[in-house]
Amino acid sequence: MTINISALLESRTACEKEDAADPLRNWRAAFHLPQGLIYLDGNSLGPMPKKALEQLDQAVRHEWAEELITSWIKAGWWELPETLGELIAPVVGAASGQVIVSDSTSLNLFKTVHAALGLRPERTVIVSEADSFPTDLYIQEGVSTTRKNIQRRLLGLDGNSLEELLDDHVAVVSFSHVNYRTGELFPIEELVKKTHEAGALFVLDTCHSAGVLPVELDQWGVDFAVGCTYKYLNGGPGSPAFLYVAKRHQQAAVNPLSGWWGHARPFAFEKDFQAAEGIRRFLTGSQPVLSLRGLQAGLEIAQAADPQQVRKKSQRLTQLFIELVENRCGEFDVSLQSPTDPEKRGSQVAFLCLNGFSVIQALIARNIIADFRAPGIMRFGFAPLYLRYTDVWDAAEALADVLKTEEWREERFQQKHEVT
Amino acid sequence: MTINISALLESRTACEKEDAADPLRNWRAAFHLPQGLIYLDGNSLGPMPKKALEQLDQAVRHEWAEELITSWIKAGWWELPETLGELIAPVVGAASGQVIVSDSTSLNLFKTVHAALGLRPERTVIVSEADSFPTDLYIQEGVSTTRKNIQRRLLGLDGNSLEELLDDHVAVVSFSHVNYRTGELFPIEELVKKTHEAGALFVLDTCHSAGVLPVELDQWGVDFAVGCTYKYLNGGPGSPAFLYVAKRHQQAAVNPLSGWWGHARPFAFEKDFQAAEGIRRFLTGSQPVLSLRGLQAGLEIAQAADPQQVRKKSQRLTQLFIELVENRCGEFDVSLQSPTDPEKRGSQVAFLCLNGFSVIQALIARNIIADFRAPGIMRFGFAPLYLRYTDVWDAAEALADVLKTEEWREERFQQKHEVT
Repeated sequence: MTINISALLESRTACEKEDAADPLRNWRAAFHLPQGLIYLDGNSLGPMPKKALEQLDQAVRHEWAEELITSWIKAGWWELPETLGELIAPVVGAASGQVIVSDSTSLNLFKTVHAALGLRPERTVIVSEADSFPTDLYIQEGVSTTRKNIQRRLLGLDGNSLEELLDDHVAVVSFSHVNYRTGELFPIEELVKKTHEAGALFVLDTCHSAGVLPVELDQWGVDFAVGCTYKYLNGGPGSPAFLYVAKRHQQAAVNPLSGWWGHARPFAFEKDFQAAEGIRRFLTGSQPVLSLRGLQAGLEIAQAADPQQVRKKSQRLTQLFIELVENRCGEFDVSLQSPTDPEKRGSQVAFLCLNGFSVIQALIARNIIADFRAPGIMRFGFAPLYLRYTDVWDAAEALADVLKTEEWREERFQQKHEVT
Repeated sequence: MTINISALLESRTACEKEDAADPLRNWRAAFHLPQGLIYLDGNSLGPMPKKALEQLDQAVRHEWAEELITSWIKAGWWELPETLGELIAPVVGAASGQVIVSDSTSLNLFKTVHAALGLRPERTVIVSEADSFPTDLYIQEGVSTTRKNIQRRLLGLDGNSLEELLDDHVAVVSFSHVNYRTGELFPIEELVKKTHEAGALFVLDTCHSAGVLPVELDQWGVDFAVGCTYKYLNGGPGSPAFLYVAKRHQQAAVNPLSGWWGHARPFAFEKDFQAAEGIRRFLTGSQPVLSLRGLQAGLEIAQAADPQQVRKKSQRLTQLFIELVENRCGEFDVSLQSPTDPEKRGSQVAFLCLNGFSVIQALIARNIIADFRAPGIMRFGFAPLYLRYTDVWDAAEALADVLKTEEWREERFQQKHEVT
């Protein structure tokens, strides 16, 4: 697939025209965006929806401060994991009753990988993409410390393929939908099919796709999925994650993190655990209500926006950025790490650059926020609901200028932080 | 031990005088308390500290909305689990570097019970108090599904004692500091001593004591502890819990929920897990920042208040309530379930009452909030930092009146909710 954005490469004016005709242009007003900021880090922390501010004010000033304990019923706090899950469900192609919001992506991975292994008790191997976001790999190690004899095969090492790794020892195949650094998009439907043919179950991590790419969990036959809400779903810093368990597995799946929120009758205070029917059995303990209340507005936006338009604009924004940077920065130490085919690319673009850390700091000083991932990746995220073609133009111009002027050499841009 | 509150039993005026002389009286102004409300449910959800509102406004309006991703460093988001843990440490008698805030009590129980079992690999038995808050028991069941051959012995059944249950198969003894229903306070130092003599490790749940009772984790020799922050620490609805791991175990203790936040170098994005040094290895994934930011104000209050004064007032408030209720409601179906000895009582009082659910609803309609725990417990919590002796007087009067008038028979007080 090729995307023709040649008209946009001509001038900023052409980008302005494209913005004016953009069918998604009105969504920008739904977000609070700091004056003058070009925000290319929505793949790390989405900006605040204006309605989230209202809902958080309501949650703090009224529900907690005035209504106190009665808000568990009156304000629906107790139901929030399911209420919010139902808002996410259509965004990831899931029918009702299969998605719940709670805890973190890492914890939800533990629950789902453990449950999947439990559904294939005679098998002992987890196949995982080697370049997964590290927590996916770390959690698999953690699961292995709690179950005997689990082995792992890493996919992508020495160019091995899923077919080569699948056999009748494999219980679980774990994949990210989009690679967190390069933005490479994997053909999930095809991978699920191969996994199922080998008798294994598929766990999908949608952290870098939910809210910005079409995700069709039901249609693709995914067995378990997890995802993040603070990136393209704009749920707020560290807002709780979600998990999906296909209806067909819910009755048999065991959540090892069996706390009282996942009990069939939590307020009967019985001594023995009996898992709730349905998706609620994947809850564990009390959920952080304020962070949950900050999340609803972002999910409502994701549900209302047209996913096909979002995907189309995402491909055009990333394509425009790639071509602008390649045109303007070709002479510098900058090389594309993301797929050139827009069909194989998520909504982020990665360039390798030896001095990438300092270049990103210099861009931030110019009010253009992107991020850096060791060892040398400059990562730019493109969220179609609030970014404009002119933002992409301006960001590419600024990047070229930072490289040309060698501004990144300034001492203030050299200081490394632990967290970026 | 007896507490002489006979002067206070005489008249409301005597209670007013006691309030005026109360050394803790000024703390009440630190909380937002709805007009006219008597709040006896701080053992379930503490009221909002006024400073929490300021801090939440700052977190939402400035840190998220304006500063976005840069707040991970600038606003100290990344360090919050430790920063907040250090605020809790002195409140639970822990030296620095042993307490961290994250996830829920249930999840922290999973981590600590699992880690404790890992430190006694040749032993297979968990001893647990039979009347623990159910999630403690449910999580032990969950841990058992992930480890082979774990058995449990329940303490308190048929009047058995810890001595009878301890032998060289016991790896872990798990206890709540205060019984969630009756308010019975257990002699932890003594129980830890017996546990250690048998070669086992002690896991303490401080949910119903942290912030309102003297807790001395280091001095008592507790090995692992967990606790809740939304009760007497006033951290906000569902605010993240804390966990304590004694320094001597940190190097060897394994957290099975090994996510990237617990890695030694999380931003190196290495493929293999290597646990962070110290308490941070007990983190898993991203934490709900807004809920964490709502928690700081409550912890600062807990740290600043004098624990001996808090304990003394707590004992006087509960004693006053018990004696007032027994004097006024003796003719009704109401019987004390809490210890009569103030030294053996936490900061809550339980009365068994056949129609307890409806009685509590009638009190709530009179703007006195307490709660109900199946099958018939009316539970009244007494938080000394914002409750007055006159509140106790008024609540006891109202309870007597509800019983005398049989107001609780009104139909509107019969409707059972799933969540109470």
